[in-house]
Order: sequence, then structure tokens, then C-alpha cells
Amino acid sequence: MAPTGLWLIGARGSVATTAITGLFALRSGIAAPAGCVSALREFADAGLPEWDELHVGGHDIVDTSLDKRAELLAESGVIPHRVVEAVRPALSDVESQIRYGYHPATHAGTQAEAAQKLAADITAFARQYDLARVVVVNVSSTEPVFPALPEHDDLAALEAAMAVPGRTVLPPSSVAAYAALRAGCPFVDFTPSRGVRLPALEELARQRRLPYAGSDGKTGETLVRSTLAPMFTTRGLAVRSWAGTNLLGGGDGMTLADAEHAGSKLASKGRGLATLLGGEVTAPLHIDNVPDLGEQKIAWDHVSFEGFLGTRMSMQFTWTGYDSSLAAPLVLDLARFTAAAHAAGQEGPLASLAFFFKDPVGTAEHRLAEQFSELVRWAAAL
Amino acid sequence: MAPTGLWLIGARGSVATTAITGLFALRSGIAAPAGCVSALREFADAGLPEWDELHVGGHDIVDTSLDKRAELLAESGVIPHRVVEAVRPALSDVESQIRYGYHPATHAGTQAEAAQKLAADITAFARQYDLARVVVVNVSSTEPVFPALPEHDDLAALEAAMAVPGRTVLPPSSVAAYAALRAGCPFVDFTPSRGVRLPALEELARQRRLPYAGSDGKTGETLVRSTLAPMFTTRGLAVRSWAGTNLLGGGDGMTLADAEHAGSKLASKGRGLATLLGGEVTAPLHIDNVPDLGEQKIAWDHVSFEGFLGTRMSMQFTWTGYDSSLAAPLVLDLARFTAAAHAAGQEGPLASLAFFFKDPVGTAEHRLAEQFSELVRWAAAL
Amino acid sequence: MAPTGLWLIGARGSVATTAITGLFALRSGIAAPAGCVSALREFADAGLPEWDELHVGGHDIVDTSLDKRAELLAESGVIPHRVVEAVRPALSDVESQIRYGYHPATHAGTQAEAAQKLAADITAFARQYDLARVVVVNVSSTEPVFPALPEHDDLAALEAAMAVPGRTVLPPSSVAAYAALRAGCPFVDFTPSRGVRLPALEELARQRRLPYAGSDGKTGETLVRSTLAPMFTTRGLAVRSWAGTNLLGGGDGMTLADAEHAGSKLASKGRGLATLLGGEVTAPLHIDNVPDLGEQKIAWDHVSFEGFLGTRMSMQFTWTGYDSSLAAPLVLDLARFTAAAHAAGQEGPLASLAFFFKDPVGTAEHRLAEQFSELVRWAAAL
Amino acid sequence: MAPTGLWLIGARGSVATTAITGLFALRSGIAAPAGCVSALREFADAGLPEWDELHVGGHDIVDTSLDKRAELLAESGVIPHRVVEAVRPALSDVESQIRYGYHPATHAGTQAEAAQKLAADITAFARQYDLARVVVVNVSSTEPVFPALPEHDDLAALEAAMAVPGRTVLPPSSVAAYAALRAGCPFVDFTPSRGVRLPALEELARQRRLPYAGSDGKTGETLVRSTLAPMFTTRGLAVRSWAGTNLLGGGDGMTLADAEHAGSKLASKGRGLATLLGGEVTAPLHIDNVPDLGEQKIAWDHVSFEGFLGTRMSMQFTWTGYDSSLAAPLVLDLARFTAAAHAAGQEGPLASLAFFFKDPVGTAEHRLAEQFSELVRWAAAL
Repeated sequence: MAPTGLWLIGARGSVATTAITGLFALRSGIAAPAGCVSALREFADAGLPEWDELHVGGHDIVDTSLDKRAELLAESGVIPHRVVEAVRPALSDVESQIRYGYHPATHAGTQAEAAQKLAADITAFARQYDLARVVVVNVSSTEPVFPALPEHDDLAALEAAMAVPGRTVLPPSSVAAYAALRAGCPFVDFTPSRGVRLPALEELARQRRLPYAGSDGKTGETLVRSTLAPMFTTRGLAVRSWAGTNLLGGGDGMTLADAEHAGSKLASKGRGLATLLGGEVTAPLHIDNVPDLGEQKIAWDHVSFEGFLGTRMSMQFTWTGYDSSLAAPLVLDLARFTAAAHAAGQEGPLASLAFFFKDPVGTAEHRLAEQFSELVRWAAAL
Repeated sequence: MAPTGLWLIGARGSVATTAITGLFALRSGIAAPAGCVSALREFADAGLPEWDELHVGGHDIVDTSLDKRAELLAESGVIPHRVVEAVRPALSDVESQIRYGYHPATHAGTQAEAAQKLAADITAFARQYDLARVVVVNVSSTEPVFPALPEHDDLAALEAAMAVPGRTVLPPSSVAAYAALRAGCPFVDFTPSRGVRLPALEELARQRRLPYAGSDGKTGETLVRSTLAPMFTTRGLAVRSWAGTNLLGGGDGMTLADAEHAGSKLASKGRGLATLLGGEVTAPLHIDNVPDLGEQKIAWDHVSFEGFLGTRMSMQFTWTGYDSSLAAPLVLDLARFTAAAHAAGQEGPLASLAFFFKDPVGTAEHRLAEQFSELVRWAAAL
Repeated sequence: MAPTGLWLIGARGSVATTAITGLFALRSGIAAPAGCVSALREFADAGLPEWDELHVGGHDIVDTSLDKRAELLAESGVIPHRVVEAVRPALSDVESQIRYGYHPATHAGTQAEAAQKLAADITAFARQYDLARVVVVNVSSTEPVFPALPEHDDLAALEAAMAVPGRTVLPPSSVAAYAALRAGCPFVDFTPSRGVRLPALEELARQRRLPYAGSDGKTGETLVRSTLAPMFTTRGLAVRSWAGTNLLGGGDGMTLADAEHAGSKLASKGRGLATLLGGEVTAPLHIDNVPDLGEQKIAWDHVSFEGFLGTRMSMQFTWTGYDSSLAAPLVLDLARFTAAAHAAGQEGPLASLAFFFKDPVGTAEHRLAEQFSELVRWAAAL
Repeated sequence: MAPTGLWLIGARGSVATTAITGLFALRSGIAAPAGCVSALREFADAGLPEWDELHVGGHDIVDTSLDKRAELLAESGVIPHRVVEAVRPALSDVESQIRYGYHPATHAGTQAEAAQKLAADITAFARQYDLARVVVVNVSSTEPVFPALPEHDDLAALEAAMAVPGRTVLPPSSVAAYAALRAGCPFVDFTPSRGVRLPALEELARQRRLPYAGSDGKTGETLVRSTLAPMFTTRGLAVRSWAGTNLLGGGDGMTLADAEHAGSKLASKGRGLATLLGGEVTAPLHIDNVPDLGEQKIAWDHVSFEGFLGTRMSMQFTWTGYDSSLAAPLVLDLARFTAAAHAAGQEGPLASLAFFFKDPVGTAEHRLAEQFSELVRWAAAL
């Protein structure tokens, strides 16, 4: 496939750093593509961009260098020390392609100007490497819930509002999505933030005939839930309650445990469970910030269900994962699949990528096995 | 559908008693069909026999009465007391249809004679109720592994050996399967015992154009494994070890914890896991007899897997179920599906019923979601 | 020992009903004293009142009859059906000794008048059975946190305020404690409610030379925590975080999951953990209402700790208990121990009963083993 | 205190390497004494040898160098990389004090000669560093069960048999214990091997007025069991079953999963549980070799217990630890406490060190809290 860009919003975060480091490890053959869906034999003939056809740049608003972040991730057990050493020069190259991103607190002009600057950064990157296309993936921190505004429903109204000095009509993730589309790039939302999911931005995507995907990468508790829930339903076992607790450290723990931020995350998780089980059940869910866990994420779920003649039974599981290790390969997968979709002329929501997301666009299918079948079918038809 | 017989080998065991009690509870509307796959809306139009079209009889070698067994199961939490009271008269009716089964220790004649007697019992039952067909389901205790003999490979040789006084050429489960087929009945093996799975008996089934299904009902740990394993493989996560411990009380605990008996059970569980994961992994597995658990079965599994860049992660689950509550509705499901298959003229191994079994005949498909899809597709085509 | 009264505040609740039913089962010998600390051989010579020397009465504001409550508890698995049947006549006797309790919403007069009425009820009960003493135990629902008022610090000021029409200067638990003390009775707080723990009431206890104990019965997660935490500290293992989730149904789930009510419960749990570990650690804690669990209470705790050279390790546990089954025998124990303390002339906070409580009065000792040693030592000296 | 030797049998194993590396890290102040019991403030005045008063040597029969072992342990997450780098020179010094140990397969002469050689090694070490005493600690791999022989009961008979060419009258651990005692050194058995626990060797210890301690370091599942079991007994809760599964990698996994070797380990674990619970309960226990876990050890225990009126409840826990991280500081603790005991003139079994062992010599006390109290009391009296 032609040279392809992967532009990361939040390019210096844990997920981005792991994805970038891993990409170079894969390229040099010092690591196997564990955790990469696109490397399964099912997709061998899908015409996806090869590892060495992917070029990476991105936006961020923090300035810790990539290799420093990679070292920290090595100490946390996410990346082997030897891999960091091996790819250090390549990290410096990517470093030179990271531009300062948008944040309301550090931006003086209008949101229109901010978006214009972001789009220009991406366009310059595409030109520099002569890229056939650039897939923009948002892997920045989860945003607080942003209030709905009338301007979100209409592209013209939105753009007028964005041009008004002092107005903050969009959250940063949506400014990024707007900029990506304006730059002619497919957009993928790996977070539960609003991103492209506003009628006005969907209108823009259609206008520009661009595909988009999202949202909220399915990497831990929800991955397991979307696997297990169909077991209960296809066996006719009535789930009565499904309680969950998530313990996470790192920046994510701090961001998500905060009630306001968690709002979007919890909502996104809840929607899926009700759909999977065919109705609402008692489903208390918590996200706790436990800093000493570092990059680890521990989820405990307790499922109470009713079997034949009303007998009560239960299942519980504990998931102990490294979120960045689980998310990073999916980011590379999404870049590859979305690039192929764009190359094939697909536009609008990529419902066939639901396999990757907690809250998939364009479909109500949450069952993991069905999502995988659809992904295979779709990729074969590309 | 026409009146259909359900003939249970082990008709006074926990699974059989729960199934029979439950059938009458469903028929009278005092219980919902929780745990019944065949009651899902996906099978509403499959033309399955209705609850009141099923007539039950069976063989057993113990003589505790059905209503006594039902009371014991009520005390163990498997059946509500009020349900036992409500169906007590119906249990007496079934009681009168239970015949003494075959056991080498209590049988004086040849195995041929034993089989003839068993077949005659089933035929008499079919005539008494004017049944269109009788599905024979083996729910008796798991047998010790039976040695392979040359006679197992050829029907004529087998029948010759069965007629030799003093020879025990078949385990009881296979004598039962032989008798069922000779009586013109489809046979379902809900246990891991040898049953119909011998070339000579498969030859007989083909000769008589009878369908058969099995083996080893998938009700707990293996159910979860066949659900979870595909999550790891479709995500490219390399499972490194999958350890399991089963604690069970009841008669089952005693039978299965015994090394010789467990042989067949553990083998049946192991085969599935390797197939699901695409290769062998370290997978220690134990079955312990813990009498105080009564009818409860507790399984703990620990899965260690490798993600991106070799990061080690893990998942563990604890399953707390009542085996009889999980198995009983599946026995009813299998009677209904197998009857419909027979009515539709199907013969040989019913691979499409793999959804119900740990060690399915006629297919290597162990993934639960794919098994369900196949079941739906197959039932729609009946 | 002389005939002793046990007066229960919340006499128709789950804990009280289980305790009363159990007392009669113990008296008639149809149950063994499982879960009863006072029945251990360590206390055989402590001169505690025998089961048939305990007479029960109490206050409540609901009017579901005791035998109806016992039946519901039987259906929930807390009490065997046969036990309910066996003690039904005795429950009616107790029924006749339950008086309407105090609640601000249903009481018209002053709190002084309310207390007077409550005290008179207890006194009448004591006279009727010619009791040497009556131990009052609060097992009613956990109250919302009650604001601190200046009158709480001084008995005279408190009594003056209680006499002012329309003033609600005390929460119901403290009105009950006041009434008990005024009636010359030792008071035990089995809940985290304020109860006797106000300077003014402690002053009254001293004046009347009465002992009191509390608070908040230690029956599940905290019981385990007070057992496990010393393992980490005596081994020099530094606990970095201790996260907990509680799932409970029943009325308790509803009451405690409510943020305001949980306030007192969570505070009481948190204090103990910090004391046990010798300092604050990250310790998120949740109580969720999961109605389908009925009387069951499930707690999951995850402990992350640091060993030699900073290595990170973890332990997690799941506790599945019936709260009423765990609490009820302790209520009987407390009645017996507190009666013996009173008979021995002890007064003020009974720190030696810390073994029973999450938030013990008069001591900072939270380690279960040390609490038990102290209990044994104290009882031997009675 | 005077310069003290610590002589390790199995000096190049994981536990020894971690202990040695850690000792130097503590000495240089780059690590805190996490996991060290002897560093608790309770023992500040016990007059134990300081970290820089401990000198290390030992026997082993493998020749991987200590710093190579330390590097492997760093990759397994047991020792931080920076610590290995910091103590590398010190490891070389210890390296020069490791002598070839005894193994029947590589030793040509009599066991008497073997013991003489081992004793001479220790004596030379003591002289070289002018040590007041040397504590010998066995941290080598668990041995298979060794048959009981009449010679084990009498020192003279034993020594006669040891002098017979070709006779293997003692397992290696007991040869090491014999050599230690002959060299005038206290002996500590950190493994479940036979070691000093033979009447003949106990006779020798008494003759030489030497103290000894053991056996089988309590580092994981049994540590938790000895903590939790008293919770059940002091609350009067009747434990009905206590099932356990251990998953371990490393060399230990291979050694212990082997049925013959596990014999001694499982026996040692089982004895404790029955003592703790005051009687036998159903307690199936497994040790599985799961190589991919590396140095990690995972234990799952399920406890089923009976409360008030027979209600069934349960508790389960999962322990995820690094065995070497848990064992190593205890080895240093035991060297310090045993040296102090020897200095104080104590001889025979050190029952007061039961806190450290699964199968303590000289006492039937298995309750962790009581063991700690005893340790504190004993150390204060030294």
C-alpha cells in the first residue's frame, strides 16, 4: 500500500508512546505482533499498509520527550528495556514530527483559528513524507462531559460560532476531529470524548467523503463483558446484576476517577452492557484512582444470574492488564484498517470496526464474536 | 409436533430428576424456561415438540424414588420446595415408567441379552404412549475409561462378541447406545462416557438412519472457556497458561475426583482448550471432591497471557453454579432438537448441536458464539 | 446467672429476627451454637447467662410480625425452614413484648417524652419477667449522619433541649441510648449510628454506673481486614493500597448505598484500616445496592503491597456471607458478655468487647487476634 | 554484635541470590528493609547483628555465577536492575566464598567424608573473617521424601553408617545439617527437607549445645492460612472445606509439582491447617508447575464454612507473590535472630521462631498473631 500517515492526538501519552515504540520494534523484527488484530492470518490478504509504510506524527500539549516517556513505561513494565534502547533513534525522528496541540487554556485566538493551525500541521506532515493519506487517531486523555449546544447540530452554525472570539463551542477532541476532516483525513476516536460524534461534524465527514471510527477502545473489562454477556443470553440464563470495579493508576486513574470525567466513560460502558443483555440490569460500576498500580489496570466483575427453576448462581472475574499494552496495538490496527477503508473509498461511520470499541459508531452490535466475524467479512471485501 | 418420548439413562440421578421436575413445572406454567436454549425466540419457529408433547421414562439401577430425589435437591437449593410440591403427582407417573437398567455386576446373561431387554423397555414405552419417536439421553454417572477392543471397530464382530456368555465387550453407556439404536431411537450422550462413539455403533446408526449427538454437556468451566478463549485469539493475545481447579460435591465429586473416572472428563476438557487456542498450552486441571459443597460446583481458572511487546497479563474467574440446574434444561433442549432432527430425516452425528457439548461429535468447532450461530442456522433449515 | 433481658431496638429487623429465632433453636437444642463466640470453651467458666436465662423484647416502628420475617429469612437462605416451624410459638411470645419505637416522623411530643415512654417500656418488661438486668442492643437500620450540636457535650443542656417542643436534638439511636440508660440498662450499639457516643450520654452512663459497648458489628469485610492487616505489618510488608467493594441486597443495601447513610459506615470502616496499617493508604471503598443478592453480602478487596527491594505483590479476596447469620450470634454474645460485665459492676465503655466491633469504644486496638486475647483475659477476670 | 557469618546451603539459588543482593542493598542504604521482620521497631533493642556485621558464604552444586543469577532475577521482576548494578562488586566477593556442595551423584567417598569436607569449608570461612559464629541456613531445592532408617534414631549408629563406603544413609539436607553442627554452627532449615529433624541430629545439637530452627519458610498461601484460620475459630465459624491450588514457575514449580517432591511440601502444609482448625477438614491441595509464571507464585484458596443455624458461606482469596522476594528477607531475619539466640546461650529447637515456618520445630502453635507475640516476647528477653 502507499505510504500512510498515523497522526496521534496525545502523541506523548502512554498509549501513543507504546504504539510508536512498538511500531519500530515490529518494523525491525525485534518483537512479534502480539495483541495486533491486523496481523492475524485472517487479514493477511486485506491489503493493509505494512509496518514500514506507516509514518507517525502528532499533536500534544505536554513536552516530556518520547524517549523519556518510553523509559518511564519500561520501568512500569509496559515496554521491555531492551526495546526502548533499540528504537531510541527512531523515537527521536518521530519527536521531530510532534506539534503543539490545542487546549482552551493555552490558546488565545478563536477555535476556528486553532483548527486551521492543527489542520495545517497535518497537511505539512503529509507533504513532507509524500503520504497518500493520514489517519488521525485521538488517544489523548478523556475529557469532561461537554454540554450539548444548538450549534453542534449544524455545520454552518458551528463554523460561525467557532469564528467568534472568546467562544468555546467545541471540546478539544472535537476541534481535533474538525481539523482532521478539514485536512481531508479519516478520524478515529480511541477515547470516550465527544470527538467526531456531533451531527455537524458527521455532516462535514459526509461532505468530504471521509470515513471515521470510534469510540473508546475496548481493552479490558468491557472487552471481557462483550465476550461473556452473549454466553448468558444464548444459554437463556437471566443476568440479574453485573457489578464492576476498576482500579487504575497512572494519569488515567486520576482523570477517570474524577466524577465529571468518569461521566462519559461510565455512560459508554453502561450502554454496551444493557444492549448485550437485552435490557437494563442492576449494574453498579466504579473507577478508582489507585496510584500505586502504575500502568496496571485491575477490574473485578461480579455477575449474578438465574438458571433453571430460578436457581441463583454467580460468576466473578478479575482482569489484570496493562492498559497501554492492550490499547497500543489496536491503535496500529485502526490506522491500518481505516487507511484501507479510505483507500477503498468508504465514507461515514465504519460500523465494521465495532470490534475495537466500547461504544461503536453506526451499529448496536456489542457482541465480540459477532464483531469479529463482521470485521473479517468486511476486510475480505475491501 | 407429534408426541415425543424422552428416555433417560440414569433417570433417578440429579440431572434427570431436575429435568423431569422442571419439565412439569414448565408445562404447568409455574416456572419460566430459564436456562432453556430451545425456548429462545431464535427457535420459536423451529417446530420443536412442545413441553406437553414430551413424555418421559428411563432406566436406572438405583431405586430411590423420584420424589425423594426431588426433595433432596430442594434441600440442596437446586429446586424450589414449592415446585416439588406442585409436581409431585406427575413425578409418580414418570416413576412408573422407570425400568431397571443394565450394570455388569447385576446382570447374569450376555450383553446381547441385556441390550435386547433395554430395547424392549423403550419400545414398550413408545407403544404405550403412541409416540412418534423416542430420544434416548444418557445422563448417568461418568464411567471409568474402557479399554479399546478390536470388536469396537466392526458391527458384526461386536454383535458376535456381545453374544458370548461372560464377555463384557462394551461399557454400560455403549450397551445403552446400542439398545437405543436397535430400538430405532436417536441417542444423545450428555456424559463423557464412551456411549455411541465407537465405529461399530456409528455403523449401526448409519444403517438405521438415526441421528446421534454428544458428548459431555458443557455446563460450567468449559462453557466459560469456550466463550473466553476466542477473545484471546481474535485479539492476537497469546495465552501462555490456563490453569483450572474444580471443586464439586454430590455424587459427581466422588466419581470424578477418582483418578480413573476423571480420565475421560479431563481428556474431554483438554481437547477443547487446545483446539480453541490453536495449540497446546500449559493447562493443569484438577477435579476435587468437596462433599460439603453439595450440588454446588465451583471452578477457578487462571489465564496468563502475553500482549504487545511481550507484556504479561492475567485473568482469573470463579464460577459458582449448580450443575444439575445448568444441565437439566439442556437435556430438555437436546430432546427437542434431536427429535426435530429425526423428524426431518437427519442421520449420523449432529455436529450442529456442538453448542451443548464439551467434546462435540462431528466437528472441531469449540467456540461458543460460532456454535450458537450454527445452531440457529441449522434449526432454521429444519 | 439471674434472669436477663435482651431488649432489641429494631426488634423486627433481619438481624433481630435471626437472633431471636436462633436463641430459641439453641434453647431447644435443635441447632448448635455455630458463630457464637460466647459458646467457645474459652468462656465456659465466665458465668454468662444461659440461653434459657435470656428473655427478649424490643422496640420497632414497623409491624411485620416476627414469624412472617422469619419465613422471609428462610426463603432467603438465612434460617432453615424447619427451624422457623419449630420455634414459631416462641416467636409469638416475643411478639407480645415488642413495643412501638421512636421515630421523629411519627412522634408528636418532645424527645424527652419519647425517651420517657421508651424507658417505661423497658422497665415494664423487666418487671414482668422479674429480670435482674436488661441489656439494650441497637440493631436498627443505620441512620444518616446527624449534625453535631453544642447540647451533645453536656447532659444538663441536652435534657433541657430535649424538653423543648419541636426540637430534634438527638437522632433516634441516641434517644434509645438515653432511654436505656435512664431505665438503668447497659447499652450496646451494633450499628454505626451515633447511639451512646455523645459526651452527654457518656456522662449519664457514668452517673448511673452503667457499662456500654459498640459500635458497628464486625461481620464481613472489616472482620477479614482486621485479621489480614496485621499479617502485612508484622511481616514488614508495606501495604500501598487496599481497595474494597461491597455488594449487598436487602434493606441494608438500599440504606447503605445511599451516600448520606453510607457516610457513617464508610467512616467507621476507614478509621480501622488506617489504624491497623499504621497510617493512611489509598483505600477506595464502595457499598452498592444489588437487590437480587437478597440477604447475601459479597465483598471484594484488593490489597497491593511492597516487599523486599520494592517488589510489588498483591492479594485479593472475595467474601460471600449472610450478614444476618453473621451478626445474629454476636448480638446474643454481646447480651451475655454485657450482662456479665454489669453483674460484675463494670461501668463506662467496655473496651474489652472490641473483638465484636468495627469502631470499638474505649480502645484503638483493631487487630482481631489481639482483640480476642483481650476478650479471653477480660472474661476470665469477671 | 560481633561479626556473624551467614552460610547458605544452595547459595546460588533464587532465594539466596535475592537475600545476598538485598543484604548489600540494605547495607548501602539504597533499599529500605521492606519485608524484614527483624527491622521492625519491636526488635530495635534486641541486639541483633547489624547488616554490615553479616558476612556471607555458602555451598552449592551449580556454578552459574551470582551476578548472572541476579540479572535473571532482575528480568523476572524480583530485583530492580539498578540494585543489581549497584551491588555487583559485592556479589563477586561473596562469589569467592561459595564452595562446591554435596550431592550423592557427584560425590565419590563416604557421607562421613562429605560432611567433614563441608564442615571444613565453614570453619575456614569463619576463620577468614574472624567470625564469632556462623548461622547455616538451608535454602536449597526441596528434596524428595527420604525413607526413615533405624540409624536416624541414634547418633553413634548414624555416624557408623555414614562411614560405610557406598552407603547413603542421609539426604543431602541432613548431611548439611550434620556438617553444620559438627562445625559448631546453629542450623536453620528454610525448606521442608528433612535437614536437622532426625533424632540423631537433634542429639548432636544437644551435645554441642547448639540451637536450630525450621522448617519450611512460611511465605505465601500458608502465611495467609495461618492468619485467616484463627478468624474462623475465634468466631465459632465451622470450616467445612479449605481447598487450595498453587501455580508456580521457576525451578520450584518443576521440583514441587513432581509428585514425590511435593510429598514433603504438601504434608507440611496439611499438618498446619488441621492444627489451626482444631481437626481435619476436606482440604484438597495442588501444586502445579506453570513455567510461564517465572518467579511468580499464585495461590487460590476456597474456604467453605458454616455459620449460625447452619448457613453456608464462603471466602476465597488469590495471592500473587514473588516467592524469592518474600523468602529472602526472612533468611536474613533468621540469621540475625538465630545468631542472637546462640550468643545468648540458647540451644535445641527455637520454638519462638515459629512465626517464620510452615512446620515449626518445638511447638504446635500455627496461629500467626500468636507466633508474632511469642517472637516479640522472646526477643525482648534475649
